[in-house]
Amino acid sequence: MSEPAVFRKRLPVRFADVDAARVLYFPRQLHLLHTVMEDFFREAVGIPYAEMIDSDRIGFPTVRLAVDFRSPIRFGDEVDVTLRVREMGKSRVVFAYDVSLAGRADIAASALQTTVAIDPRAWKSVPIPDRYRARLGAFLAPAANEEAPRDGG
Amino acid sequence: MSEPAVFRKRLPVRFADVDAARVLYFPRQLHLLHTVMEDFFREAVGIPYAEMIDSDRIGFPTVRLAVDFRSPIRFGDEVDVTLRVREMGKSRVVFAYDVSLAGRADIAASALQTTVAIDPRAWKSVPIPDRYRARLGAFLAPAANEEAPRDGG
Amino acid sequence: MSEPAVFRKRLPVRFADVDAARVLYFPRQLHLLHTVMEDFFREAVGIPYAEMIDSDRIGFPTVRLAVDFRSPIRFGDEVDVTLRVREMGKSRVVFAYDVSLAGRADIAASALQTTVAIDPRAWKSVPIPDRYRARLGAFLAPAANEEAPRDGG
Amino acid sequence: MSEPAVFRKRLPVRFADVDAARVLYFPRQLHLLHTVMEDFFREAVGIPYAEMIDSDRIGFPTVRLAVDFRSPIRFGDEVDVTLRVREMGKSRVVFAYDVSLAGRADIAASALQTTVAIDPRAWKSVPIPDRYRARLGAFLAPAANEEAPRDGG
Repeated sequence: MSEPAVFRKRLPVRFADVDAARVLYFPRQLHLLHTVMEDFFREAVGIPYAEMIDSDRIGFPTVRLAVDFRSPIRFGDEVDVTLRVREMGKSRVVFAYDVSLAGRADIAASALQTTVAIDPRAWKSVPIPDRYRARLGAFLAPAANEEAPRDGG
Repeated sequence: MSEPAVFRKRLPVRFADVDAARVLYFPRQLHLLHTVMEDFFREAVGIPYAEMIDSDRIGFPTVRLAVDFRSPIRFGDEVDVTLRVREMGKSRVVFAYDVSLAGRADIAASALQTTVAIDPRAWKSVPIPDRYRARLGAFLAPAANEEAPRDGG
Repeated sequence: MSEPAVFRKRLPVRFADVDAARVLYFPRQLHLLHTVMEDFFREAVGIPYAEMIDSDRIGFPTVRLAVDFRSPIRFGDEVDVTLRVREMGKSRVVFAYDVSLAGRADIAASALQTTVAIDPRAWKSVPIPDRYRARLGAFLAPAANEEAPRDGG
Repeated sequence: MSEPAVFRKRLPVRFADVDAARVLYFPRQLHLLHTVMEDFFREAVGIPYAEMIDSDRIGFPTVRLAVDFRSPIRFGDEVDVTLRVREMGKSRVVFAYDVSLAGRADIAASALQTTVAIDPRAWKSVPIPDRYRARLGAFLAPAANEEAPRDGG
């Protein structure tokens, strides 16, 4: 059985990503994770986010989020973000993110994001389409392989 | 014993708070919660956030976050946000937020935000100063009194 | 002839509105001006922005912007923003904003924002509807009454 | 005499860069231009923005901005941004940006951003340091070479 794939991005912490304490503002850290998720769909799943929403009529809204912020990330830092698929159900996909300073092994932040496939017009859950499922499955990594916050639910 | 106080704010969902699915983008929902926290310090604790950071040299960075997003919030909605203090330790303060559509009883989202009092220059935890502790304590509400996501940790 | 009305808002500069130089980040200053415009439509014109877009099918996209940033605005400042209507044509509305520190007379920033009434589905200009025109006209103030950047066009 | 250099970036319009009309929200378009300016300093001038602010003690706050938004940019679009130096004085640098849809020749938006070199601690103008001037000069392009909004000042 092949090793699960990991999606990786390196991102800068920009001039206005920090707050008045000059540390990455946590809502913008979550925005950065969402940009990685968008890149994952385009580059790894092969479906640009706009095509997913507007042509396939599939959205993945976040229904639960659990984040550990372990150490501050500062203006001028670069971060490495990894994305794995922790769980995949009929409609439910849990993404696991780890964030570290560029080139460093220790985790600065980790997040579990539970999403549900929906039809965005009706805002009703739908089964994950097969062409999504196959690609998402390649990134499916059980919890034991990573450090992440325990999900409360 | 007196009833714990609850801090309340009503906020609009603005033209650019939504994403391309026209639903409140979750990182901006967390930003809205942070603005409520800033208002809470100024109005309820009596210490403007800038004075807290720059004069008192106290910051409350978020070290853990657990959020349930139960139903979509849309462009043009107004939301009612409540803030309570769920727990208070030597340095640690856990804030609990509930978000509902204006005038509605059912919860659209709830969040637990664990923060730690620090000196922002040294980024080291410090005891919560007494004048903060007294005011924060007035908003201390045990978990049983509210609906909120279970915290994983 | 009655004096033109002026729409006024006082706004805080929040923890994450500043950049790493701890000064209000100019794209967020423009976002603050847009929130004032949204409040103007709801409170002064009497039409919530969401109703304008989704029921009346009218949008006012910005086609030209000219801003003078005269002095820095910092974390913890509060600002007073005024909105006036500088010009109104068949479809075109020019809004003029002045920003000052709360309670101060000198202008920290001023902006001219040229917008055009459109049907957002077709993205074609439309005449300003009468019920908008009447209310907008009450805020119509000729250029001589204010300090503002000269518009290049 | 050699041709002036042009700095170019291709950027996606993301899920939450648009507003409720599903068009790139103009304050976020200006944020995108600022990220291009940050990349320009790091990649073309050779000085990361954080080093510029924190080691060299040089900032380039924006003192004037003039933007023409000619056509809407939508969710899912990619844009090509060019940056040129339009003027360079003792302390003053005017950047000119053109934005087009990826691979298209027609300009969707163009901006002139007037900045002044300052010491960010004192917020006083300073002469542009020589090692900046030399690199900025390579991108100096007179107005006749480009389409851009006329600057009011």
